[in-house]
Formats: sequence, C-alpha cells, structure tokens
Amino acid sequence: MHNFYSDTQTKPSAAMRAAMAEAEVGDEQRGLDPTTNALNERVADLLGKEAAVFLPSGTLCNEIAIAVHCRPGEEIICHRSAHIIAAEGGGPAALSGVMLYPLDSDDGVLDPAQVEGAIRPESRYLPRSRLLSVEQTANLTGGTVWPVATLDAVAETAKSRGLATHMDGARLVNAAIASGEAPAVHARGYDSVWLDLSKGLGCPVGAVLAGSRAFIDEAWRFKQRWGGAMRQSGIIAAAGLYALDHNVERLTDDHDRARRIGRALAQLPGVAGINDIQSNLVFVDLTPEAPDAETLVAELLDEGIMIGAFGPRRLRIVTHLDVGDAAADAVIAALTARLG
Amino acid sequence: MHNFYSDTQTKPSAAMRAAMAEAEVGDEQRGLDPTTNALNERVADLLGKEAAVFLPSGTLCNEIAIAVHCRPGEEIICHRSAHIIAAEGGGPAALSGVMLYPLDSDDGVLDPAQVEGAIRPESRYLPRSRLLSVEQTANLTGGTVWPVATLDAVAETAKSRGLATHMDGARLVNAAIASGEAPAVHARGYDSVWLDLSKGLGCPVGAVLAGSRAFIDEAWRFKQRWGGAMRQSGIIAAAGLYALDHNVERLTDDHDRARRIGRALAQLPGVAGINDIQSNLVFVDLTPEAPDAETLVAELLDEGIMIGAFGPRRLRIVTHLDVGDAAADAVIAALTARLG
Amino acid sequence: MHNFYSDTQTKPSAAMRAAMAEAEVGDEQRGLDPTTNALNERVADLLGKEAAVFLPSGTLCNEIAIAVHCRPGEEIICHRSAHIIAAEGGGPAALSGVMLYPLDSDDGVLDPAQVEGAIRPESRYLPRSRLLSVEQTANLTGGTVWPVATLDAVAETAKSRGLATHMDGARLVNAAIASGEAPAVHARGYDSVWLDLSKGLGCPVGAVLAGSRAFIDEAWRFKQRWGGAMRQSGIIAAAGLYALDHNVERLTDDHDRARRIGRALAQLPGVAGINDIQSNLVFVDLTPEAPDAETLVAELLDEGIMIGAFGPRRLRIVTHLDVGDAAADAVIAALTARLG
Amino acid sequence: MHNFYSDTQTKPSAAMRAAMAEAEVGDEQRGLDPTTNALNERVADLLGKEAAVFLPSGTLCNEIAIAVHCRPGEEIICHRSAHIIAAEGGGPAALSGVMLYPLDSDDGVLDPAQVEGAIRPESRYLPRSRLLSVEQTANLTGGTVWPVATLDAVAETAKSRGLATHMDGARLVNAAIASGEAPAVHARGYDSVWLDLSKGLGCPVGAVLAGSRAFIDEAWRFKQRWGGAMRQSGIIAAAGLYALDHNVERLTDDHDRARRIGRALAQLPGVAGINDIQSNLVFVDLTPEAPDAETLVAELLDEGIMIGAFGPRRLRIVTHLDVGDAAADAVIAALTARLG
Repeated sequence: MHNFYSDTQTKPSAAMRAAMAEAEVGDEQRGLDPTTNALNERVADLLGKEAAVFLPSGTLCNEIAIAVHCRPGEEIICHRSAHIIAAEGGGPAALSGVMLYPLDSDDGVLDPAQVEGAIRPESRYLPRSRLLSVEQTANLTGGTVWPVATLDAVAETAKSRGLATHMDGARLVNAAIASGEAPAVHARGYDSVWLDLSKGLGCPVGAVLAGSRAFIDEAWRFKQRWGGAMRQSGIIAAAGLYALDHNVERLTDDHDRARRIGRALAQLPGVAGINDIQSNLVFVDLTPEAPDAETLVAELLDEGIMIGAFGPRRLRIVTHLDVGDAAADAVIAALTARLG
Repeated sequence: MHNFYSDTQTKPSAAMRAAMAEAEVGDEQRGLDPTTNALNERVADLLGKEAAVFLPSGTLCNEIAIAVHCRPGEEIICHRSAHIIAAEGGGPAALSGVMLYPLDSDDGVLDPAQVEGAIRPESRYLPRSRLLSVEQTANLTGGTVWPVATLDAVAETAKSRGLATHMDGARLVNAAIASGEAPAVHARGYDSVWLDLSKGLGCPVGAVLAGSRAFIDEAWRFKQRWGGAMRQSGIIAAAGLYALDHNVERLTDDHDRARRIGRALAQLPGVAGINDIQSNLVFVDLTPEAPDAETLVAELLDEGIMIGAFGPRRLRIVTHLDVGDAAADAVIAALTARLG
Repeated sequence: MHNFYSDTQTKPSAAMRAAMAEAEVGDEQRGLDPTTNALNERVADLLGKEAAVFLPSGTLCNEIAIAVHCRPGEEIICHRSAHIIAAEGGGPAALSGVMLYPLDSDDGVLDPAQVEGAIRPESRYLPRSRLLSVEQTANLTGGTVWPVATLDAVAETAKSRGLATHMDGARLVNAAIASGEAPAVHARGYDSVWLDLSKGLGCPVGAVLAGSRAFIDEAWRFKQRWGGAMRQSGIIAAAGLYALDHNVERLTDDHDRARRIGRALAQLPGVAGINDIQSNLVFVDLTPEAPDAETLVAELLDEGIMIGAFGPRRLRIVTHLDVGDAAADAVIAALTARLG
Repeated sequence: MHNFYSDTQTKPSAAMRAAMAEAEVGDEQRGLDPTTNALNERVADLLGKEAAVFLPSGTLCNEIAIAVHCRPGEEIICHRSAHIIAAEGGGPAALSGVMLYPLDSDDGVLDPAQVEGAIRPESRYLPRSRLLSVEQTANLTGGTVWPVATLDAVAETAKSRGLATHMDGARLVNAAIASGEAPAVHARGYDSVWLDLSKGLGCPVGAVLAGSRAFIDEAWRFKQRWGGAMRQSGIIAAAGLYALDHNVERLTDDHDRARRIGRALAQLPGVAGINDIQSNLVFVDLTPEAPDAETLVAELLDEGIMIGAFGPRRLRIVTHLDVGDAAADAVIAALTARLG
C-alpha cells in the first residue's frame, strides 16, 4: 500500500522500534523518566523555550495551552480552518469555555490588520480577546508556510493589545525545513508552541508542548486532570528522540516529492488547480468533467494507493517517510490514467 | 433629554407603574404568582408555543435556550453580529461549552444555502452542529426584519439536518408590526423563542422565553441554577401585561418616526448612507468630511439629545415610546446643523 | 392564609409598593439608575465593603462570587447543607467548574480545625483549595447564628492558607439583629458577602452582593453574561431601600415569635425535639407516634396555615413580617391539637 | 532499588519490550491499528461488555465515563477517598461540570442504604443524582476488595432510581484474583468499567475503558476532543496484550507478599496498626513514639528501599512484579530495625 492519506499514517521503522525497546524509563509523573525528560529538554531547546512537556497528542497540546492562557468567556482569534475549530470536537468551548473569532483567508495566513480588527474593545458585553492562535503550516488551506515576518507581525499586534500568543506547530518542523529558518525563530513571538512527533517525524504517538517554566508548570496540572499524564512514557518518548536525530533533514525529500507530484498533476486536463505547494501537502481540485473525489479515492485504493477526499471535488495527497519515489510515480500514473 | 440611545432606555409610564403597584403576587418559584403566570400564558399564546417562563433579561433567555438545546462541544450556527456572540460576554462558551459558527451577510439575514453549508458532517473531529439561532430583528446590522419565508426556509434546512432552532426575539414584536404578520407566524419554525419587555414595549425589566412544555420544564432548572428565579415577580410581570395591552400597536409610530428621521438625514451632505429602515433603528454612516461620531454624540448630548456611536463614523438612533415627534424634530435639526 | 412556609413568601406591603411606584429610574447597565445606585451604596456601607451590585436573586450572588473567586478545578470548602450545594441546581460545578468539599456539623457552623483539615496540600493531583464559603444564618441546620468570633477564626484560617472567603448572607440581617453585632462586623473577614432582600426584609425580588471595587467590577461581567443585568431596576431596588429603612429592627419580633412557637411546641408529647432557636426558623422533630410531616402539612393547609415538611418526620416553621401574633397562636393551636 | 512506592512504578520487562517492538500497527483513529483493536476486544470480553477503547491513562477513563454519563449540574455519588475526587485535579467539575456527593466509610466500601440516602429527590433546586461511581479496589482506604454482592447491591440501588453506574477498575484485576471471581462478574452491574495496564499488570502506559457499543461510540468523541486519540498506539497496546497473557495470575504473589510484610510489621512495637490486607496495599500506622513517616521514608531511601508516606504517621507499601521476596525481606528488615 502506498499511503498518501496523511503523514499521520507513517509507521515506526525498525530502527525507531529498537530505540523504543531499549529506552530507559521511570515514572514520568514523578519526573523520573530519563528519556521523557531528555525529550522535553531537547524540544524546549529546539523551540527556544524554557521548558516542555510530553503529551499523547497534538490535540492535547492545543487544548492545554488554551486552558492555561484563557478563562471561560474569553476569546481566541484564529483562522476559520484551524485545527482547534475543525478537528478537536469543540474542545476549546467544551473544555475551557472559550469563544472563537474565526478569520478568513485563502491560504490560512492572517495579516496584522485582520488580527487588529478582531481584537474586541474592553466591554462588559463583548467576549474578552485573550489569545491569538496560529497554525504552522496551515493544514486545511494547503500546507502553507507562514513567513517568519508575518508570524512576528501578528504576534506583535496581539501582544501590543495584551493578548497571549500560541502556535499550533503540528507541521512546524516542515515549515522550518521549507523556510530554512530554525523552529525557534518561527516560535519566537509565541508564548506557547508545540511540535507533533506522529506526523512527518514518523513516531507512533506523541507531541511536545513548550513555553515558559511557569506555563509548563500550569500545563502539568491540566495534563494530570485531562488524563495525559502517563507512567513509563520513555518507551514512546524514545521514538521522538530518534526522530529528531534522523527524520528532520529528510523532510526536504517529502517536500520535493510533493512538488513533483503537483507539477505532474497540474498539467492534467481533469485538474482544475493545485495549491501552491510549500511543504508536504498536495491539494488537487478536479474539473467538473473529471470523476468525483470519492470515486478516485476508491479506484486508487483498489490499486493499492491511498489518497484522501476533501470535499466532493478535491483530493489531498500527503508525502511522508513511508512513501518514496516509487510511490510518487505510482500515484502520478494512477491519476494520469484517470484525469489525463 | 431626548433619548435616542436605545429602546432599552424607555422609562415606565405612570400607568404602567400603577399596574405594577397593584399587581397580585405570590412566590413564582412555587408557581404561586398569578400575575407572572398570566404573563407567561399570554406570551406563550402570542408566540404560538405551549408554555413560557418569565426571566429578568433577554440575555438569560438566550443563554438558557442554548443550555437546554445543546451539550458541551456542540455548535450553534448564527450571524456574526448576533447578540449571543457580541453582547453576552462569551456566555455560550462559558456557560454551555458550545462553539459558534458565525456566518456573514450585510443585513444580518441568512439564507438556507449558507446555513446548509455551515452544518458539519457527522465526525469525531468536528463539533456537532446542534442549533440554528436567528435574531429578529437583526440588531447590529440595522434592525432588518427577516421575511417570514426566510425564517421558515432556514428553520426547515436546520430541522431537516437534525438541528434545533432558536429565535432571539428581542425586537420580534417590532418585526411583527412592521411585517403585518403575527409573532407566532414568525416563530412557527422555532423550537424556542423569546420577546423582550424592556425594549420597545417599555417595561423596566424582563423578558419571556417560550417553547414546548418539556423545553420550559428544563428551562426552569437553569432559571433556578443561574439565579433567574425570583419570588414575587408579579410586580414586574405586571408591566409586561400592561405593555402587551397598550404598547404593541403603537410600535408603528416608532417605525414611521425612524423612517422620517432617516429620510431627513439621508439628504445631508455629511451623510454617506443610511440603512434600509424597516423598524425602529436608524444607522447613519458619516462622510470622511463630516465630524466623527464621538464628536457628534458629545455635541448633541450638550443640547439634551442622546444618540449612540457605533464605530468612529457611524451613528445609531433608536425610536421608542419616550421619543415623540418633537424629539424627532430636534434630532433632525441638530444633525442638520452639523452635517448639512 | 397564615404562611409559615418560608420568609421568601412575604408579600410587599402597600407602603413598599408605593415606594416602588415612585422610584426614579434609568438604565442600570449604564450606571444611570439612581435608585439602584443608592441601594448599592447603602448595602456596601452596611456590609463594610467598597462596592456592591444589585442582582435578581441570592443564588446569582453566590454563583457570581464563586465565578469571580475560582477557576475551574478549584475547590470550595463549605458545610454539606449549604445553599450552594443543596439549592442551586449544581451551579458551582456547572457554571464555574469547581469542586466542593462538604464538611459536616450538627448546626451548620464549622470550626477552624475542620477548615484547616479540608485545605488540600499543593499537588497536581488534588483539586486546589480556593474558597471558604459560610452561610449566615445556617438555614438547613436550623437558622443557627454563627458567632462573630467563629466567623473571624475560620476566615483567618482560610486566608492564612491563601484561600478567598465568601459569606452567603441570605439571613445575615437576622443574624445581626439576633447577635446585636452589625452586619459589617459579621462580614469583616469575608472578601464577598451578600444580603437577601426577598426574605426577612420583605421585598418581592432581589439581593445585593458586596466586595472590593475590583471584585464588583469583575462581578459585573458575570452579571452581564448570566443575564442578571437589568434596565430600570430602580423599581425593584426601591423596595430594598424601603426595607432597610423600615424592616430591619423589627426582625427581632420574628425571632421572639419563633421562640414563642418553639417553647409551646417543645412541650407537646408528639414532639421529639426542637432546634436551638436563634433566629426565625423553627424545626420540629416528630416522635414515631405522631402523624407524619406530610399529613400535618396537609391538615394545617386545610385550616389556612402553611408550614413546610423537611423530610418525613420534620416540620419547618418560619416567621416573617406577614405572620403576626395571631398567626403564631393559630399554628401553635393547630399543632397542639394534633401533637398534644 | 526496591521500589514499594506504588505499583505504578513497575518497569516493562524485556519480554514485554520485545512484544512492543514487534507489534503490528496502524492508525488507531481510523480503526486500523490491529494490536489496539485486539486489546480492546480482549478487554471488552474480560469485563463482559460489548466494546472497549484504549486510552493513555486511567484518569482519562474516569473522566470520559463521567462526561458520557452526565450533563453539567448533575451529581455523582462516590466515596470521599475516590480517585475522581482526590487525584484528578478537580476534573469532574472542571471537565463535565458535575457535582460530587462524597460518602464516608472506613474501608472505602459503601452500602446500599448509604447510596439510597444520597440520591436526591427530583427538584429544581437540588443537583440531579446521575451516577454511582465505585472504585475496585478502594485505594486510599487500604486496597479493600468490594465483595461482589455489595457491588451488585449498590448498583441495583442506583439503577432502581435511574442512575447510571461506573466502576473505576484501577486495581480490578487484583480484586478478581483476590476474590476468585472473574472481572466480568465484578463489573456486571456497571454501565462502564475500566482496567489499568500500568499498575499491577506492569505495562508502561495505558488503560482500557469498556461499556456498551453506544457508550464507547460516544466515549470516542471525548477521546478525540481531550487529546487521548493517538496514532500507531499498537506499540503500547502490545504491552497490554502481553500483560493479560503473563501478568494476571501472578498477582496472587503480590498479595501473598503484602500479607507477609503486613504480618511481620504488625508485631513491631512502633506499629499502631495495619490495614486488613486484601490485595497488594499495606498501610502502616505508626505509634506516637515511633519516628515519623517522612523520616522513615528518607532513611529507607538511603538504603535503597522506596516506600511512601501517607500523612505524618502513616506509611504505604505496595507490592508489584518488580519487588520479589528479597525486596520484601529487605523492607521488613529495615522497618524492624527502626520500629522493633
């Protein structure tokens, strides 16, 4: 199976499994898991923050950050396509009682004027604007890489008005590789930021949330309350350390491969358009004459190629370390046969 | 003082005060307040519902309806300018843990396709779409009266997809008078609806929420929990009964007066535009050359005329039973002197 | 009807109604209601606090105070019979996400050692102890008046460990009259405190919550969000001012009458015991041979006397300004006929 | 180090690590992780339920079960020492808005009359009783094994009054081994139940929550929202399958060892009392003359023996698969030297 459905589908390699099997462990809740501790320190350094905490998922990173930054009735400014709106089951309202102020843009990137316009004046009637949340890369709008200057600018706007800032870094490492700027540079304007281990980095489970020491101390209360506190988590944290050693630089291959797939598909008569591919996500819009997305997904699945449907006439193809050049050739060939 | 700031500024008349002073009362929490009971029955009839409950404010009507209809993590579809987003301090998220899906339109009215497009497919990731909420009239976008056909159509769309429907009827009585269709006709597609007594109807305090018997039974639990359960509330409910007898038909005067003010101001050189006046709200957009809104508000206040600023270059003028023809002449004259 | 069911059943007198009918009013949300403003200032003075806010019910006073003092997951220490546990529909958890640590005692009064023992050590696992809440008088345990020294001592214990302190003053004025110590003396150790207007003071609706200026500013946000913000509330606030002028000192009559009823009933063969009557609540425990509470309640109702059943073998009789000496004679006679 | 601090301290054995390293995996969120699926089916069978879901912690099992069973403002009846009160950071109130009705008993076991007495009558004022939660074994009161007959009886009481039932099965497997009754027999009266993999069973991470198919479907929504949804979780689920094959029957050794330690310590002059040891927890109360708990813990740590202090004069010693007979001899010797 060539699995282009999502980078979350990567399976751990034999070498990563070996690293996990040999991990030194202890009780992470008591600060006694040396592998988890090492991962936390490493990620804090990578993101330029004082401290970090290992968590079972990126969703938990987002939800805990929101809970630490906000009180009930306060408001978060973010893009309408943000993971915290569209993929966390209503968590921000359900878990932290916060409102969301969704902004629109084609590529998922916001500009400072938009953010400024969404900050509410102080009033007993209005929700209190409290947090700016950005997503690097912007997933549902095409894997766009926010430029560092824009990240800095919107963070500055938010902070000048007293808001906290948070970065959903699910694919921040992709953005860093794509832009040539270190993760800490991307994250420098943000009070909290996390990176996902189970996407492009190829780990089975986990994400790491970073921020100031005080922020992480408070985050730990929520980790405990929300059931994200584990025991000998070093077994899975070991995969993260392995990935940071071995799977970061190679993301450039995923990006190249995504662009190659995009270039090939863009020329097909059945393709109406392709996103501006900046990282590892290829979005393919189909012409009205082409087969619909669901049909194509089903037909390719029969040939051992898994891709995703995003709406009736849009496909999503994601590159990651389990799909190499042969897989790229295969998906191009299969779609060319149907859309050519 | 000619007070055009809001219809919420109306003071109770001597006759209304007399009605209050003579009200028969008992403990409303035990169902023993005859005046409150009579008001509830009267409003339920007026809105075409089985039952109703008296509450101290319209905000509480909205928040209780949301709490009855929704569970945490579910989502409400409404206009971005809705009172539940912009004027209840983040209540829907803080009190009920619900997400909001804001839609945009110039006049505050939504169409069925917009609503359909906002209903989420069933998924573990997405918030669960649960409630459509409309506001009659649409306040922040200009007092627009939703046509009954549109109300019916969006309610039908919502119900066909399993959503509940709610109407914020803060100015529903204005809409009924303006459209010539009874409140119950407007509300017929809605599981819950309320009307405000302290706006155009001229009462000092109160609103009444209506729905099915089961809905109102459940609403009572929240009325108790949220501190909206009172004791001898008949004193204030009496004002509501008085208003339904005396202050409904006369709303047409407020609407005529609003249109008269609008026509006069529309011709002034300093006025860039006026909203399509359908009820009692006049929104005046100022030209770049005109004095700004804050200055005009302050200057008129010095002359004993209170109007509101909605942004730096927009004024709001609201007619109600405390501002008659002389007041209308005065506000026209004062603004003509400055914008003419 | 002689109504001993509760002091919440008092109906406003003609003089109080007249005061309401003549009240000067304005929009309380804009700070323009002179009568409500006067009431707030008066109560703040009476309770020895910087500021106060008028609310439609005592429940809302409690729930808002909790919301201001606490964040979700924090814990309140209080007596198990407290109104916030037993009569607010689960509000503390539902509205503010707080846990409750109920303590037991026969009379509703807590001692410092109990409070100390309930304060949790700092830990990621435990709820964070945040608020001590006391109820003056302790209603469900018999209207007991907390001694000022005990109020001071438990507040001191709480504050020394970093907790905030709150007093549910539903019957604080009764306690002040009974003890001869001013309300402000009772409340001096408490960051927030409220008094109820619709109980012994005889108003139809309302309660007033007091605290520091910063506390009241924050309380206003919740008043708005939870629908407790009204408009021309001076109409009902006027009753409060009237009551503070006319209905405070006379509470001593209610207490004397309660004691008289208690003394008479205590001697009856069908009475197993009577509470130590310190204010206006009489609790009567029935012997196994006596008719049960429900039967007695029903029989007295037929004779025009309303009392309450608190469990199968306990009656509650409450004195207030609508039940005078003749009513007291009547209830004594009716119960003597059945329990004598 | 002989680690008697808690059974949560067990480190995975080489054989368990090997099982993890070889696990077949896929995306658990899409139902594609065969190892996690196998574990869920196996645990559902073991607990006699239709379905199950793997989660990163027992805390998350409890909190999700509460969220599925309850709406905000409803109430849970449980023992005061319950994990959901004392060790989940206020989660039930913070996450689900529920109240708790704590009951007291020396051994953590409740009887039907207590439960019956805690169920509230239907009322707008009272919280709505909604869930009975029991903990098998009762941890903080000494590892007591609830008799199956008592579990059945309290569940029957709860269900007859319309409540749902939940079992925190953190040490349910210990209880099953100790009692000779299968886990499904213990759980038969309970709508939801979970078992912990990271305690006596010796896994590094994880717990499994079971219930009806509809319950588990709804639980999945919360797993997603609360960040408990992972990806290739089969790596850690494999440990669970290994443990169910190899680490269940041997729990009897832990129990025997606990009793042996208890018998030895009970005779020491410095020991005031020992709990009735029914499973793997030994609680040692010290006499006033003995060194205090903190001192003993520190001194034993210096000798390579870790035990826990539960209050100033109580020790907790927990047996599990990392502490064998030599370790038991060592802890007995070390304490005998100090308390003998």
